[in-house]
Amino acid sequence: MSTHVTTWNSSTILIHGVGLLGGSIAKACRARGVGKRIIGTGRDRVKLESAVSAGWLDGGFSDLGQLESEQIDLTVICTPVDRITTDLSLLARHLKHSGLITDVGSTKEQICRLDGVQLPAHLTFVGSHPLAGSEKQGLENAQADLFQGRLTVVTPKDEPNEHERAAMKSVIEFWQAIGSRTLCMSPKEHDEALARTSHLPHLVSSVLAFCVDDNYHHLTGTGFRDTTRIAAGDPALWTAIVKANRQPILDALGEYAQMLELLTQMIENDDAVHIKDFLANAQEMRLKLTSRGDSHE
Amino acid sequence: MSTHVTTWNSSTILIHGVGLLGGSIAKACRARGVGKRIIGTGRDRVKLESAVSAGWLDGGFSDLGQLESEQIDLTVICTPVDRITTDLSLLARHLKHSGLITDVGSTKEQICRLDGVQLPAHLTFVGSHPLAGSEKQGLENAQADLFQGRLTVVTPKDEPNEHERAAMKSVIEFWQAIGSRTLCMSPKEHDEALARTSHLPHLVSSVLAFCVDDNYHHLTGTGFRDTTRIAAGDPALWTAIVKANRQPILDALGEYAQMLELLTQMIENDDAVHIKDFLANAQEMRLKLTSRGDSHE
Repeated sequence: MSTHVTTWNSSTILIHGVGLLGGSIAKACRARGVGKRIIGTGRDRVKLESAVSAGWLDGGFSDLGQLESEQIDLTVICTPVDRITTDLSLLARHLKHSGLITDVGSTKEQICRLDGVQLPAHLTFVGSHPLAGSEKQGLENAQADLFQGRLTVVTPKDEPNEHERAAMKSVIEFWQAIGSRTLCMSPKEHDEALARTSHLPHLVSSVLAFCVDDNYHHLTGTGFRDTTRIAAGDPALWTAIVKANRQPILDALGEYAQMLELLTQMIENDDAVHIKDFLANAQEMRLKLTSRGDSHE
Repeated sequence: MSTHVTTWNSSTILIHGVGLLGGSIAKACRARGVGKRIIGTGRDRVKLESAVSAGWLDGGFSDLGQLESEQIDLTVICTPVDRITTDLSLLARHLKHSGLITDVGSTKEQICRLDGVQLPAHLTFVGSHPLAGSEKQGLENAQADLFQGRLTVVTPKDEPNEHERAAMKSVIEFWQAIGSRTLCMSPKEHDEALARTSHLPHLVSSVLAFCVDDNYHHLTGTGFRDTTRIAAGDPALWTAIVKANRQPILDALGEYAQMLELLTQMIENDDAVHIKDFLANAQEMRLKLTSRGDSHE
């Protein structure tokens, strides 16, 4: 049984996968003095070396074997959702000292089941999902303030023991230290909610971008631009998210299609009263979002 | 038969309905020295008086009878789409001198048919639709630069006579004088295109805002915010648009629902190859939009 630090300032933090999110975490750590030593792993040596030169990584390793001599307090896995479990297994073989591991995956249930992962007793995994990101991928878009004021969902086990509760507390403290607000939910609750608040919007936006021929693009305005902005996201990353959260996404799509059909029927029936009610309800919901204290508009 | 001015600098311009669009047109005219005299009509006297006090209207009338002594060169009808034909008939009774009339309606075919409108020979109507606006309504959000670099579609009759061609040219010059780019299309082509590029996005966005319960709002990110932004638009205004452009909107909704069903089937079949292809096509379309020279991103 390991003991966990409750403040992260004197720790060694490993970022596994230094893209938009991993790079932003490393930069946020440096900017806020979180972590005494911040190291990164990844396949791209050039990227890692440029991060070290830029001063926001203290070391970059493309060979995980090099981690064996390091005392790593927290590992943050920042690879795509379909890589996280595999990467956790790989890392577990090379992390020889007690420590915590978390991730940034947009889906949580499949990952937090840890199916097929041999996690030694000196390592503890707690899932995380920072609700921050961009349709712009890659290290070049990483920003130290990406998590500032945003929410990170931390997804502990249903009935955590004392050790797991301590681990969860430490992971929460880490996200707060780099500027994030935090919230705990079960992996299942998280996935059902995010199917609606994130995955459904992405698919709805992608279908719209797909449907409007570029011959019409000169006739689009800000409405079309806003509504399709997220359709520019990485297809591989989103395919992995869809695969990992299939049933909740199908449920959300089913409800969406039903509501779309309902509105279509009203239009077919030229039923102005109900069309206006529907649009007024949608407007009311959207204005509630705008008026939230944590809104970023 | 009237003759039309080809530059607007010494003209009298009437803005009928001084809200977001009408107010922005008046402000743009003043800022660019378009129109020697700019007057406004509307039901709200306080609004009109405040616009006169602020200096961007030279006169404001809530009684259309007051227009009879005015030599008005161009009238721009800025009321909602379901009011435009009625307002055109009302105005036609009081505009005693030769002049042009245009509008800013988001749909054009129904309006440009001029069903039931008694237009005297000294008045000529040419439809317009500036692709500028905001989910924020009202005079208080009016801006002089709202049309800067945006597109205005001008919708002449299918086979205009010489007089109508001259009128169209004058209307085009007006929009260009206040900063807009312009494009001519038939009312039918316009409505079919806008059903896809503007009306479909609004409905897709409204259904999404409707579907995501506000209990989930704290778990939304920038993606949901962007995708639902236009759902905050005025329900009455959008109900009128839907009514005026019913069949093209139903066609666009039908195609959208089909594509959504196609993607849903792929997800049901766990068909990662086709899901990724679909999302990659959507991404490519969206990136084409971003890379357009006239993009405002």
